[in-house]
Amino acid sequence: MADPLLRTLRCRNDHRPGVLGRLATALGAAGANIGDIRTIRVGRDHIVRDLDILVDDEAGLLKTLDVVNQLEGVDLLEVIDEVHELHIDGKLEVRATHPVRTLHDLRRVYTPGVAEVVETIRRRPEEAYVYTIRGKTVAIVTNGTRVLGLGNVGPVAALPVMEGKAALLHQFVGLSAFPLVIAARDAETIVTTVQQVAQGFGAIQLEDIESPVCFEVERRLVESLEMPVLHDDQHGTAVAVLAAAMNAAARAGLDLSRAQVGVIGLGAAGTAIARMLGEVSLHPILGFDPNPQAQERLRAVGGEPVSDMAGLMARSDLVVAVTGRANLIAPSLIRKGQGIFALTNPQPEITVEDALAAGAAFAGDGRSVNNLLGFPGILRAAVDCRARRIAPSMYVAAARAIPAFAREDEFVPSPLRPEVHRGVARAVADAAQKAGVARLPVPTDYQLDLPFQALRRGEAP
Amino acid sequence: MADPLLRTLRCRNDHRPGVLGRLATALGAAGANIGDIRTIRVGRDHIVRDLDILVDDEAGLLKTLDVVNQLEGVDLLEVIDEVHELHIDGKLEVRATHPVRTLHDLRRVYTPGVAEVVETIRRRPEEAYVYTIRGKTVAIVTNGTRVLGLGNVGPVAALPVMEGKAALLHQFVGLSAFPLVIAARDAETIVTTVQQVAQGFGAIQLEDIESPVCFEVERRLVESLEMPVLHDDQHGTAVAVLAAAMNAAARAGLDLSRAQVGVIGLGAAGTAIARMLGEVSLHPILGFDPNPQAQERLRAVGGEPVSDMAGLMARSDLVVAVTGRANLIAPSLIRKGQGIFALTNPQPEITVEDALAAGAAFAGDGRSVNNLLGFPGILRAAVDCRARRIAPSMYVAAARAIPAFAREDEFVPSPLRPEVHRGVARAVADAAQKAGVARLPVPTDYQLDLPFQALRRGEAP
Repeated sequence: MADPLLRTLRCRNDHRPGVLGRLATALGAAGANIGDIRTIRVGRDHIVRDLDILVDDEAGLLKTLDVVNQLEGVDLLEVIDEVHELHIDGKLEVRATHPVRTLHDLRRVYTPGVAEVVETIRRRPEEAYVYTIRGKTVAIVTNGTRVLGLGNVGPVAALPVMEGKAALLHQFVGLSAFPLVIAARDAETIVTTVQQVAQGFGAIQLEDIESPVCFEVERRLVESLEMPVLHDDQHGTAVAVLAAAMNAAARAGLDLSRAQVGVIGLGAAGTAIARMLGEVSLHPILGFDPNPQAQERLRAVGGEPVSDMAGLMARSDLVVAVTGRANLIAPSLIRKGQGIFALTNPQPEITVEDALAAGAAFAGDGRSVNNLLGFPGILRAAVDCRARRIAPSMYVAAARAIPAFAREDEFVPSPLRPEVHRGVARAVADAAQKAGVARLPVPTDYQLDLPFQALRRGEAP
Repeated sequence: MADPLLRTLRCRNDHRPGVLGRLATALGAAGANIGDIRTIRVGRDHIVRDLDILVDDEAGLLKTLDVVNQLEGVDLLEVIDEVHELHIDGKLEVRATHPVRTLHDLRRVYTPGVAEVVETIRRRPEEAYVYTIRGKTVAIVTNGTRVLGLGNVGPVAALPVMEGKAALLHQFVGLSAFPLVIAARDAETIVTTVQQVAQGFGAIQLEDIESPVCFEVERRLVESLEMPVLHDDQHGTAVAVLAAAMNAAARAGLDLSRAQVGVIGLGAAGTAIARMLGEVSLHPILGFDPNPQAQERLRAVGGEPVSDMAGLMARSDLVVAVTGRANLIAPSLIRKGQGIFALTNPQPEITVEDALAAGAAFAGDGRSVNNLLGFPGILRAAVDCRARRIAPSMYVAAARAIPAFAREDEFVPSPLRPEVHRGVARAVADAAQKAGVARLPVPTDYQLDLPFQALRRGEAP
């Protein structure tokens, strides 16, 4: 399995034309992808630059360094591992929102004052959403059994990914999220552990739990907890795929509600994608997966398992593939005018270029569908309206809200654009209201309200 | 049970001498304790002031307001509930330490960069202490069954207290702490829940769990987890009491190692106090408690249960009472020259004044012993040196370090003085090293190192 490395090469180049060009060419020839280039110092004779590179593995890095060292006019000063440096002490910090500098502060934050708030919540537990972190806090739960493309790395090695998700939740929508990494692999233990601590949180986000355990965990938590529970690998991914598919279909003049949709690979993401596309399509979703359990899950959500991938390709106007298998789809299987999303990373089931060359009307890969688009706004809205659960229509609403923010040359917008998350949150809050799962009414100016609430929490808007 | 209220009265007084004096006198006569007084606005004819008051209960507040409203020259403008206002949205925030503004940031905090850190930790799990929040993060665990003087308020009502502890940990020693409120009352469920999530934390702080469940929970977690586990109600309190007792004894010329010590009330705090005093005293600690289980626990830590409180009082040079029962100790029981700490809040077993009048050489109550003194420095040092557990000598070292920071007129210093926590951390780190429980060596400049590490975490020193 590929384990790509991100490094920064600090190079001192002779200050004359052509040196950077030769360096970039050499890096490319060695197989390194070049990212940002930053000028560090400009001298009379030399320029020092930092070049971010992505290489396939340790051997690729060594080869790249050899190539650079052989270049005339370039001195390799340092190989910087910014990623590990940035991770020192982790990526989160739990801070006091009210600094305690004086006895006056202490008597309010701690005893005797705090006893009054305890009494308020003891009498009316719902007030915890107002007077504690519960009203803005998400547990990010994993057991580390299916992390990124790395598989079962275990709970503690999964922490950096969970911290990343928590960091993004704070950054994008002002929620406080905290990782809980659970030692068990079985659904029963995961479920009971989360149930035991759930009262301290406003929502539960499940992450990177292997299939089929993730399905049972999600189902039992949704059934037993009166709060939003979101399995991001399923629904976060499905929201982004649906958003991209809607946008691409609309641009290509394809009516998604009347289109026949096929999904290849029915793991956690594939099943959720099939279910969500089923919410907008009038036809049952076709699905291909050799696993009988996966076929059963597809039937349970109203889809139609098929035994033949080529048949699915031939019958479908839109195909989504999430199989984990590179180059699975031969160009000869593409039907003219068909749309295709081949989402396996880093090598898709069929490349965008090959699919288009074979006659696809539109094609996307993992880079054109970003699962960071959905979960922040969905969770923020679900927490703000104290949703009893996340209704399917809330996911669909999130997907419908996203394409409006995309540029002409992209299926979905960058998740770094704050207005995307506000738009998602607004749409999801409305959908929660309509679905009857919201325990608090959504203010009519909710979209504008978001920066205000963030402000109240001491955030820059 | 008393549930005192902290309120701020905003009063507009006529701007002439004597008005504030009459107001303060009237408040006192109504039974309100006056805290800070802050001038808000000064006009030609009026002065607006905020007066913090503490009253016994709702009836006391109403009576106080009536009294103020009858005063000539004083208009009561507003009764402000600062405590509840301050608690809105809770007292903690989980923030990203590295803001994600660009794709460059995203590729380091999240994919693809994060995969490298996952791999590092998968290969060497100990690296989680360096590259995740584990190396600076504490779980504050409760089930809310014995919160402050309020008893069993349940997990969610206990949250504000746990948030307060977490806020103080960040404020005093830069640790990130997060509350986990557990729904169960039985030791088995609490233990297994904590074991399931422990890998995400550097230490476990147990809080406000009823006795005797707290003893079993602590014992089993200490035995099963290779990390610091601290039950603050026991050991945090005991450290503060030992510190105060050492200081008071030294000033009174009493040699604590040769003194006979008696403890009245052998709950969680009393047992821990007996155990810790046993570490410094050559004689077995005498203990009085009608509960046979409590007597058994005292025997297990080397103490000697007695069946007669008067006998204990007569035999002891130093008496510590933690019974929860106001006025339990009649002045006639005090032996001349004896030291006494009567720690029940808000009404002690015997007041300082009565004890001194009855001939005690020194006397303290709950206000003279602050349990915020111990746990921050102990946890910080234990986390920094990755202690396998907290050895008894580490608690004693913390207690020994505290008196040096006290003023002449106090037994222990204010916990708001940062140097106290640095001193405790330094002493505890040394003790961990000597006890052989530290997995990392303590740097010789550890005390100075503390602000540096805090700085590395983006903190003001």
